[in-house]
Formats: sequence, structure tokens, C-alpha cells
Amino acid sequence: MNNKPWVLVTGGAKRIGAYLNQEFAKSGKNIVLHYHQAETEALALKTQLEAFNIEVFLWQANLNEPATIEQRFEELLKQVPHIELLINNASVFEQGSLLTSSLAQIQSNLNIHLTSPWLLIQALVKQAIKQNKPCQIINISDANLSHLYTSKAAYFISKKAQETLTELAAIECAPHVRVNAIAPGFVLEATVADTEVSTQISSPLSSKSSAQLATKDINILQRKVPLADLFSAIEFLSKNHSITGQTLQIDGGSHLQCPPYMLKN
Amino acid sequence: MNNKPWVLVTGGAKRIGAYLNQEFAKSGKNIVLHYHQAETEALALKTQLEAFNIEVFLWQANLNEPATIEQRFEELLKQVPHIELLINNASVFEQGSLLTSSLAQIQSNLNIHLTSPWLLIQALVKQAIKQNKPCQIINISDANLSHLYTSKAAYFISKKAQETLTELAAIECAPHVRVNAIAPGFVLEATVADTEVSTQISSPLSSKSSAQLATKDINILQRKVPLADLFSAIEFLSKNHSITGQTLQIDGGSHLQCPPYMLKN
Amino acid sequence: MNNKPWVLVTGGAKRIGAYLNQEFAKSGKNIVLHYHQAETEALALKTQLEAFNIEVFLWQANLNEPATIEQRFEELLKQVPHIELLINNASVFEQGSLLTSSLAQIQSNLNIHLTSPWLLIQALVKQAIKQNKPCQIINISDANLSHLYTSKAAYFISKKAQETLTELAAIECAPHVRVNAIAPGFVLEATVADTEVSTQISSPLSSKSSAQLATKDINILQRKVPLADLFSAIEFLSKNHSITGQTLQIDGGSHLQCPPYMLKN
Amino acid sequence: MNNKPWVLVTGGAKRIGAYLNQEFAKSGKNIVLHYHQAETEALALKTQLEAFNIEVFLWQANLNEPATIEQRFEELLKQVPHIELLINNASVFEQGSLLTSSLAQIQSNLNIHLTSPWLLIQALVKQAIKQNKPCQIINISDANLSHLYTSKAAYFISKKAQETLTELAAIECAPHVRVNAIAPGFVLEATVADTEVSTQISSPLSSKSSAQLATKDINILQRKVPLADLFSAIEFLSKNHSITGQTLQIDGGSHLQCPPYMLKN
Repeated sequence: MNNKPWVLVTGGAKRIGAYLNQEFAKSGKNIVLHYHQAETEALALKTQLEAFNIEVFLWQANLNEPATIEQRFEELLKQVPHIELLINNASVFEQGSLLTSSLAQIQSNLNIHLTSPWLLIQALVKQAIKQNKPCQIINISDANLSHLYTSKAAYFISKKAQETLTELAAIECAPHVRVNAIAPGFVLEATVADTEVSTQISSPLSSKSSAQLATKDINILQRKVPLADLFSAIEFLSKNHSITGQTLQIDGGSHLQCPPYMLKN
Repeated sequence: MNNKPWVLVTGGAKRIGAYLNQEFAKSGKNIVLHYHQAETEALALKTQLEAFNIEVFLWQANLNEPATIEQRFEELLKQVPHIELLINNASVFEQGSLLTSSLAQIQSNLNIHLTSPWLLIQALVKQAIKQNKPCQIINISDANLSHLYTSKAAYFISKKAQETLTELAAIECAPHVRVNAIAPGFVLEATVADTEVSTQISSPLSSKSSAQLATKDINILQRKVPLADLFSAIEFLSKNHSITGQTLQIDGGSHLQCPPYMLKN
Repeated sequence: MNNKPWVLVTGGAKRIGAYLNQEFAKSGKNIVLHYHQAETEALALKTQLEAFNIEVFLWQANLNEPATIEQRFEELLKQVPHIELLINNASVFEQGSLLTSSLAQIQSNLNIHLTSPWLLIQALVKQAIKQNKPCQIINISDANLSHLYTSKAAYFISKKAQETLTELAAIECAPHVRVNAIAPGFVLEATVADTEVSTQISSPLSSKSSAQLATKDINILQRKVPLADLFSAIEFLSKNHSITGQTLQIDGGSHLQCPPYMLKN
Repeated sequence: MNNKPWVLVTGGAKRIGAYLNQEFAKSGKNIVLHYHQAETEALALKTQLEAFNIEVFLWQANLNEPATIEQRFEELLKQVPHIELLINNASVFEQGSLLTSSLAQIQSNLNIHLTSPWLLIQALVKQAIKQNKPCQIINISDANLSHLYTSKAAYFISKKAQETLTELAAIECAPHVRVNAIAPGFVLEATVADTEVSTQISSPLSSKSSAQLATKDINILQRKVPLADLFSAIEFLSKNHSITGQTLQIDGGSHLQCPPYMLKN
């Protein structure tokens, strides 16, 4: 093993997760590449990341099974004994109003957005305190949580609960570990350069893809958020040691005002 | 069956739930008396309530088992075909910090404070809309959620999620059904008159009972909240048809400022 | 002088203020009838109110001149030595975006919505504490402050500051005096029965009168707020002694979701 | 004149303002050095700043006189025709509870924290739009506004109103100009290296200087905020073009939990 610090981005084989892993690899971090079902994408991304002269550890795990996730993560921590940065990014975006959401949908959203991230934080922070090594947590939130959208009720309520998790964890993990979040708005299509991991990324709360929208309707700054603006926010949070419990809205201002494309939700 | 309207208060055999059932019985409502393990208290309360010349229907159900609660509630709705007011009151108050909460604790708090109330709302509102009959929902929140307390992390996060449920449900159930909440602060000992149901009630987030506190330290109004002030708030919300999605802080002002007794949390 | 308690509603000769004065008169309160320029309306209303067998004291004062309002209020308190309830209701609703608001507009909005109410609270609460007599304050807020509307910037910012005033005053005036607010949404046309004080009332942040709107577009409850629902909220806040620092949204749920009629703002 | 971009920090001769001016000068910006009464400090700082090979324009102006500030700023804009970054930093920190604040105190706090910044934003943004040149605004807020402190009521209410100004201005000035804020907590003593501008900086809402506090009582991260962490936040906001209407808490987490030193307020 080299001496480079390890990063774990959950849901790291696709979309924003894959992009972040590429940026971390470029900046010299080793990667725990987490995926659930996207084995093909994960293997392809692993090859790309290794070209940056870093180590990649594949970790297949289902965040919708919190009863097994604790043990799976303990096993991981035995093999990768120190992870400096955990990014809770994995997410599901299914339609479903409050009155029609099934119990299975409610529970999978809570598991993936709240309970499993909580368990990962517990295990990681306990180890960091025990080892007395630096450690940091960043949750990926959603700028549109600032408005009450009803089309994805299980998503909305579980992600709002994740915001509370961010704040309470910031208090509980201080002073050793800082816990923050970024809340992306409508993100530019992620055509990750030099990769097959090309995919369209948009706001989970929207029913339209960004391609269908006029630029001026996206947010008050009238610009899709470039993925680079998310990574610069993560780097900033990593380096500024006076910040904890903060959610950064990287969204062209959509947290301030219902963007027109959300109105029918 | 008489023609009186039915009310369901979850966790209705003890503490605030028992008090509310008594007030509803006095004001001429029939009662679905829900309990989980408190069979003794429930049977005693049933006898008392029936003295007010109303009907009482006992409903034993475990809100920590959402997988069965849907069916149990459907069965109830067949026997009590129209419930006009649902009060989601049942609660658990276990100690446990964010880093030490067990998975079982996290999940039971989510089940009892969020998922089961959500399922009850779904079934009740669908029926009310179908029957085109009046229906209303009031959640029992907690004034101290306004501050970030860490001693009962699973309680805190799941009850905050219930606040989001209140707001989203208010939108989703409008215009037919209104959904509101009351957030009690430190409540006066509930010595329910003429009953064996005497019990001490205090703030779930406090580690002290109200008997241990000087009056001036309880909240800025320096008064324990009388139970009658909770009931008057519920009556007000029931009668004012312009209010939905509102949480009423009935707390002597403790949502405004950390009460001294909470500081060690 | 009779022994009835005195109430002061600022801006009491027209619209919501006139309605509240009528309801207070009916319920046996003496009225300090405040007006600025509406002398004709004030004199007509005085005659009507006196029919309810209560006393009316006319008080002409310009809340846009805080430098004189202190002295004017001291003079009033010499003649009406104990006012039990102050309702800060006076308001101005001029168009003006943040970039085009004139200094005069910014300052008059701050004077009328923030500074003068603050000075009235100071004088009244000091006297109530000195006299050891009951006293209460209710500010009239606006449900649409929950969203960031830009068409009346000076109104918006000064009324938001009034919300902070409500909360800080609740702490500072406790335990002797409670300070709360109600936030009306789109209010029904006030055709005050049996009076000449008939006037159309709507949301200050809207550019449309309520007559121009389809009922379903007004708010999620699809109903204009009856004035009686405002008065019942004021009565509730007056009687429930465990509530302070609370703003009650009496708005058909418009604080939860941008009502369609506001979108162009 | 050189071609370097101009920056204006209000209250730029002392404390945080002086520090920021030094950092901007080091990074190659020209400085409009604003002061009110601190002429001695301003002249000394001007000499230091010019050593970095940039231009310094002294601007004496009283932000407590909004009636003259418009004209004074127009005159400035004629001489320094394009300011790329305005930092509303000037502040007053006088003691005074809500019940004892004088009218003069209320008005000076509103003038300095709200009205004059508002007027500066109006003039600057209009010019930037007209010239079609880049422009940005950052307000200096206060992390402790997250809690309701009562010892400096006029400060508290006017600074909270400035938060609303930040959000409304972000909407109104989009997409051309971004408006954000940073909210410092308890800041490390500013012993600005190589200067005579040495001064102790602390939280305006605290009655203690930072020297009197144990490190562990300052905030949950148990560290005084280094001034460099404020500057890095300003640089981040300047460079990330997807962020507007955001307040960054640079405070060791004190917005999350009442720091012990604030409790007596």
C-alpha cells in the first residue's frame, strides 16, 4: 500500500459519485469505490482511476440493508484501516406522493439516505477518535429541499432528516471530526471527459431532464451548475477548519426561489 | 352505535394521551383507545371514559411494526368506519447519543415517530376523501426540537422528520384534510383527577423530572405548561379552518431560548 | 370611566384594524382608536363602536415619525393609564424592488413596521411591569413572508425584521408580558356587517385583489381567510398563557407553498 | 491608474476590515479604504497597503447618515469607476436590551447595518449592470445570530434584517451580480503581522474578550477562528460562480449550539 489518504464516496460508480472519484484520484487520493448493482461501471471506473497512480479498493454493499451494513463496513475498515473523508452520496430518486408511497419505498429511502449514512458515521468516527487521526464527513444534500416539493415524498422527508443528521453529527463529532454538506441544484450533464461514465445528471426533485429546460428557467443565476463547482466546494470544506454543521447551497440560487421548472411538483 | 364523532389518540392509555382522551370523552367524542403494552391502564381508562356516556373501542397495536400496522389499521377502519380526528401522540424517549445509538433504537424511533404515523395518515385520509367526510390530523411534536439536543439522537432526528411529515402532509392532504401539530414544552405533572392514571409528565429531552426543577428555570414564562393549555390548542386547531401545516409551540417560550435545564444535554 | 379593559390596535380605522376594533367592542373592551390620516373613517367608526356601550378614545399619531411617537404615546398613557392589549397592525404596502426603493420608502417602512412598534412596546411594557398589571402584545405579520418576494422590498425586509422583534421581545418581556403574532394570508373582502367600513382586504404582497382570483388559486386550502378566523386566533393567544414568541399562520396554508398568484412577484 | 480591480470594504481601517484590506492588497487588488472616524488608522494602513504596489483611495463617509451616503457614494464612483467587490463590514456593537434601547441607538444600528449597505448595493449594482462589468457583494454577518441573544437588541435585529437583505438582494441582482455573506464566530485576536494595526477581535454579541475564555468554551470545535479562515471563505465565494444568497458560518460550529460564553446574554 502507498501512503496516500483514502476517500470513500458512497454510490461512487455513477453520476456525481463517479465524477468526484475521478477528481479525488487526480488529486492523489486512494479510492474506496463503493457500488451496489453497478458492477460494470465500477470495474470500468476502477481502471480509469488507477491510471492516476493511486490505489482503488472495490466495496460492494447494499445501503438498503442497514442490518448488514455495519458488519460489511467493519470488514472494510479492517482492510482499509483509515479513511480520511467519507462522502454520503448514494441516493434513490423514485416518484411517489405522500399518500401513495409504499412502506417499502419509505423504508428504502430512510435506509439509504439516513440510517446507513448514520451507521457509517458511527463506525468511522469511533475509529478516527481511537486512532487519533484526521477524518471528515460531507453529506450530499439537495438545494431543492428548501422548498416543500411533494412529488417524491419519501425522498424529500428522508433527505430532510439527513440534514438534521448533518447538524447533530457536527455537534456530536466535534472537536475531532467536522461534518458538513453540500446541496447541489440542477447540475450540468456529466460528460466526464475521457471516460465511458457519461451520464445525465439533474435535480432529483425535477421530472424534467436539464436538456429539456431553457437556461433562464433553471435558477436565478440562469446557469446549470458545473460539476467542478461541487468539487471546489468539497475542497473548500476540507481545508477550512473553522466550518462544521454547514450546508453549502451550490445551486445557482434555486434554494432562494422556487425555480419555474419545479412548480408543477 | 351512537352518532358521536370518533377520535384516535395513539399511545392513548398513559400520560398526555390519557389526559386528551378524558377531555375528548368529556366533550362528547367516542374514543378509539390505542395502546401497545399498557393493557392494565387501557382497561382502567376505558371504564372511566365510558362514564361520560360515549363509546370506547380498544385498539391494541404495535407502532414499532409498520409492516403489520397497515393491515391492523384497515381492520380498525372496518369496525370504526369514520374517525374525524387522528392525534399522533405515541412516543419513545430513550437515551442515546448519535455515536452510540443502536440500529434497533434508530429504527424503532423512526417507526414510531415517522413511518407508522405516515401510514395511519395515508389510510385515514384516503378513506375521508372517499367518504367525503371531515377529517383532521394533529401531530404531537416537542418544543425543544427548536434546539439541537444530543442526548436522545434517535428521538431528536425522528421527531424532526415528523415535523417535515406535518408540513408535507398539510400540502398533500389539502384542501380536504388539515394537518397541524402542537409542540409541548415542559408539561405539568399530570395528576389526572378521579383516576388511577396519575403520572409525571415532563419534557422527553430532559433528564430531570419537573419536580426537580425550580419554576424559574423551566422556561422564560417560568411556568410549567398545564395540560389544559394543550387541549385548548387542539380545540383551536380543530375549529379554525384557515390553519394547516402549523406547529403551535405550547411551551412557556422554551423554543426561543435554551432553557437552563437543557444545557447539559 | 368604566372599568373595562382597554385595547389599542394601530391603524384601527380601516381594513383589518377596523374589523378588530368592532370585535373587541362587541366583546366589551374599551378602544383606543388610532389613526393617522383617516379622520373621517375614525370618526364614523367611533360612533359605531360606542353603540356597544364601551368607551372610545381617539388617538391621532403618525407612526412614520418615531422621534415624536414616544412623547405622543406617553401623553396617551397619561389619559388611558392601562392598556391590556396592543396590536401592532398599521402597515404600508407600496410597490418597489430592492434596487429601486427610495431612501424615503425604506425609512418609512422601517419606521412603521419596526421602530414605532418597538417604541410602543417599550413604553407599554415598562408601565405594565411598574403597575404590575396584565399586558399582552400581538403583532400582525404576513403569511407570505415565508417566501422571498421581491416586488415590495422595503415592506418585506421591514416586516421580516418585525418577526425578529416579536421573538426578541417575547424573551425580554417574559415572564410578565407575552408577545405573539398572527400572519394572515389572503383575507376575505371585509364587508363589515352593519357598518359603512366596507373595504377590500387582500395580501399586501399580491398585486391582484382577491376578487380577481379563482378560489382554487388562493392557497392550498382553496379558501379566502374569513376575518373571524383572525379574531379567533387573537382570542386564543390572549387566553392560552403558555404561548409566547409564536407566529400563527392564518393563511389557508400559503406559507407552505408559493400560491400561484404570487409567482410573478 | 493601474488596471487592477478595486475592492471596497466598509469599516476598512480597523479590525477585520483592516485585515481583509491587507489580504486584498497582497493579492493585487486596489483598495477603496473606507473609514468614518479612524483617520489615523486609515492613513497608517494606506501606507502599508501601498507597499504591495497597488493603489489606495481613501473614502471618509458616515454610514449613520444614509441621507448623505447616496451622494457621497456617487461621487466615489465617479473617481473609482468600477468596484468589483463590495464587502459590507462596518458595524457598531453597543450594549442595550430591547426595552432600554434608545431611538438613536435603534436608528444608528439600522442605518449602519441595513439602510446604508442597501443604498451602496443599489448604486453599485446599477452601475455594474450598466457597464456590463463583473461585480459581487459579500456581507459580514455574525454566527451568533442563529441564537436569540438579548444583550444587544438593536445590533441583533438590524443584523438579522441584513440577512434578509442578503437573500432578497441575491434574487434581485441575479443573474448579473452574486450576493453572499460570511458569518464569523469568535475570531482570533488580529495581530496583523508587520503592521501597527493590532487589535483584539471577538464576537460582537459577547461581553467577554477572547483572552478571557478557555479554548474549550469558545465553540464546539474548541478553536478561535483564524482570520485566514475568513479570507479563504471570501475567496471561495468569489470564485465559485454557482453560489448566491448563501451565508457561510465560519465559527467553529457556534451557530449549532449556544456557546457557553453566550449563556448569560
